[in-house]
Amino acid sequence: MKRDDNISRRAVIAGAAVTAGGLLLEKLPVPRQVPQQAPPPQLADPSSVPGTPTSAVSARSAFETPARTPVGQLTGVSLSPIHEFTGTITPNDLVFERIHSGIPTIDPTKYKLVVHGLVDRPMTFTLNDLKRFPSVSRVHFIECSGNGRSAYRDPKPDMSPQIVDGMMSNGEWTGVPLGVILREAGIRSSATWFLAEGGDAAKLSRSIPMEKAMDDALVAYAFNGEALRPSNGYPARLLLPGFEGNTCIKWLRRIKLIDQPNMSKDETSKYTDPLPGGKARQFSFLMEAKSIITSPSSPMRIERGWREISGLAWSGRGKITRVELSTDGGATWSPAELQEPVRPKAHTRFRLMWEWNGGPATLMSRATDQTGYTQPTHAVFEATRGKGTDYHYNYIRTWNVDRDGRVTFAI
Amino acid sequence: MKRDDNISRRAVIAGAAVTAGGLLLEKLPVPRQVPQQAPPPQLADPSSVPGTPTSAVSARSAFETPARTPVGQLTGVSLSPIHEFTGTITPNDLVFERIHSGIPTIDPTKYKLVVHGLVDRPMTFTLNDLKRFPSVSRVHFIECSGNGRSAYRDPKPDMSPQIVDGMMSNGEWTGVPLGVILREAGIRSSATWFLAEGGDAAKLSRSIPMEKAMDDALVAYAFNGEALRPSNGYPARLLLPGFEGNTCIKWLRRIKLIDQPNMSKDETSKYTDPLPGGKARQFSFLMEAKSIITSPSSPMRIERGWREISGLAWSGRGKITRVELSTDGGATWSPAELQEPVRPKAHTRFRLMWEWNGGPATLMSRATDQTGYTQPTHAVFEATRGKGTDYHYNYIRTWNVDRDGRVTFAI
Repeated sequence: MKRDDNISRRAVIAGAAVTAGGLLLEKLPVPRQVPQQAPPPQLADPSSVPGTPTSAVSARSAFETPARTPVGQLTGVSLSPIHEFTGTITPNDLVFERIHSGIPTIDPTKYKLVVHGLVDRPMTFTLNDLKRFPSVSRVHFIECSGNGRSAYRDPKPDMSPQIVDGMMSNGEWTGVPLGVILREAGIRSSATWFLAEGGDAAKLSRSIPMEKAMDDALVAYAFNGEALRPSNGYPARLLLPGFEGNTCIKWLRRIKLIDQPNMSKDETSKYTDPLPGGKARQFSFLMEAKSIITSPSSPMRIERGWREISGLAWSGRGKITRVELSTDGGATWSPAELQEPVRPKAHTRFRLMWEWNGGPATLMSRATDQTGYTQPTHAVFEATRGKGTDYHYNYIRTWNVDRDGRVTFAI
Repeated sequence: MKRDDNISRRAVIAGAAVTAGGLLLEKLPVPRQVPQQAPPPQLADPSSVPGTPTSAVSARSAFETPARTPVGQLTGVSLSPIHEFTGTITPNDLVFERIHSGIPTIDPTKYKLVVHGLVDRPMTFTLNDLKRFPSVSRVHFIECSGNGRSAYRDPKPDMSPQIVDGMMSNGEWTGVPLGVILREAGIRSSATWFLAEGGDAAKLSRSIPMEKAMDDALVAYAFNGEALRPSNGYPARLLLPGFEGNTCIKWLRRIKLIDQPNMSKDETSKYTDPLPGGKARQFSFLMEAKSIITSPSSPMRIERGWREISGLAWSGRGKITRVELSTDGGATWSPAELQEPVRPKAHTRFRLMWEWNGGPATLMSRATDQTGYTQPTHAVFEATRGKGTDYHYNYIRTWNVDRDGRVTFAI
């Protein structure tokens, strides 16, 4: 970003920079989804005719058709269109989903959460029981630990942010601290781990250290103001802020306090990280600091002049403290502005104005969190973790801009 | 709240208080809306069968049917179900709407915002032009200045929070500071007000002092991560944080810089506040501090034992600094816990655990903001503003609990 180092964001806000060449239009990417409904007939002046009436639930404009990208069927994912989002909140119907045997249909009046194992009093909680406890609301991201796998294994120039890193979402969760529930049942001193099991046909289960239960774990029943959607764990799920998404067991039906990891299928055959030399690391819960530029990105084509570089940064270890951007492939870096308030273990929007002068450019973002940890380069990541590693792909993402303004994904 | 004064939230969180009588179920209110789809057939065990597949957009559970309450048709409102919300974020399809001549259908590629009047260079901006400016995202509420009118004029015991105060919403807005746009056009020193006009058939317009334009006003094009919905002003609206909702002109098509208020129909025949003695106050932009308990509330019926009192507080002047709750009609008050981070001119969730012992109770909430201002009582409000006042009903709301646990709206 050599030539822009002396351009402050303040100057751009003041309008000094944008006026020079006037405002240039950006060509939007061609929509990849069919509209949810046919666009209405064109009106010469919408203010010349009465509009549509009040309603019980408001629909999107027929001109706006954001959609997840489904991959697979009963075992699969739906990738969030993160390149279309503004700010930090993921709209409720566009939260990513990762399912192992489809989405179960659960009657909330029949829902039960069993707590047993190394407790004084095994207990069963209905959904209304959970809602009688003191509630808390906090904003957190969830990211699948496999997020970025396709882009790492087989990067392609036309990959969009949705395809590269769409297995993550962020919003305001409401629920009960897991520690409150466990104290009801009476925690025995021998309990050092807990097993959490889902009520789907896959019965996904993971073992988690008790420290996390007593720290910031929630049993969540709401997201962005309303009940969880079925694909998001309805009626209740585990939320382990900053831990890999698969540990945040959806359709939570059972918590068993145990004195060693359960070694369930989901933490032996899956969700361990192969390393060079044939070893694997296990119980790699934490999602390390990471970021991605969501605009400009493939398959956009940008015009010369000033525009915003914008994206998301996050860390499972706490707050993001710095995001730096490079437009010259990492030779020079400039600090981006972080949207306030920056919250721990939550998506943080970063922004920086940039003037593209028509030459080739290589865009990169690198995030640093409150522990001082900074995202590794692709080269360092590959040397450390190997080409075959399966999870936790948090290296620096790179986008190329060619002389025509076309943006493509590099690595 | 005499008898609860010595019960700390910490004790309740620690589980000491909830165990005494065990967990009691709360009877839910009878749904007032037909389900959006028929409930699925009952399954003995959802984990015994494969679930439903991945999809492009996730639907709500068939068991969850939150809905706005439409009142009127082309001139009307749709009241948000604020009693069903958790946390602070309003789901995108449940944002309240207030419309004067229906919702216009606007093609975003044909949308234009004209800036003229006391400027050096009259300018026209397309939606893409607006998106080329530096963007900001902030969480703010919008409240209709008439919110609470029915409850003030004709209170009825069966009124729910949705009916009492459902003309408000809160979420993360993204847009361009209005000051940035106006500086592009060049602000003449004689400009002391600006007129904002909507592109609907009502052509709603309001005059606003220039100070607000240069303070925190936004031209917003997104809400909670995605494009505004048509009923929320698509493709772009004015957002004047803390000002009455009607000034936040939807479908914004024109900004004219002027040297005195325009005295448009919407600020003379409407949106002035009649006072006792035949006078009226005009340009009463600010929404003063206010709060409402959303649970328990009419038409719920509560059971004895511990439960959470929860609700929303907000102020157009900045941050909420204190919310106090009374369960004895205002004789004694206890401070509620405020959900962090508390943000200026945004909904703030408050919570307090309460043990209902079966006697009659009268629940009230009162909010104080960073200026030190506290909501007035109903009696003080009525004496000051008169029975016929039309807007800005921010007195303390009161709910009664009878011996059967039935909750009714009082005033």
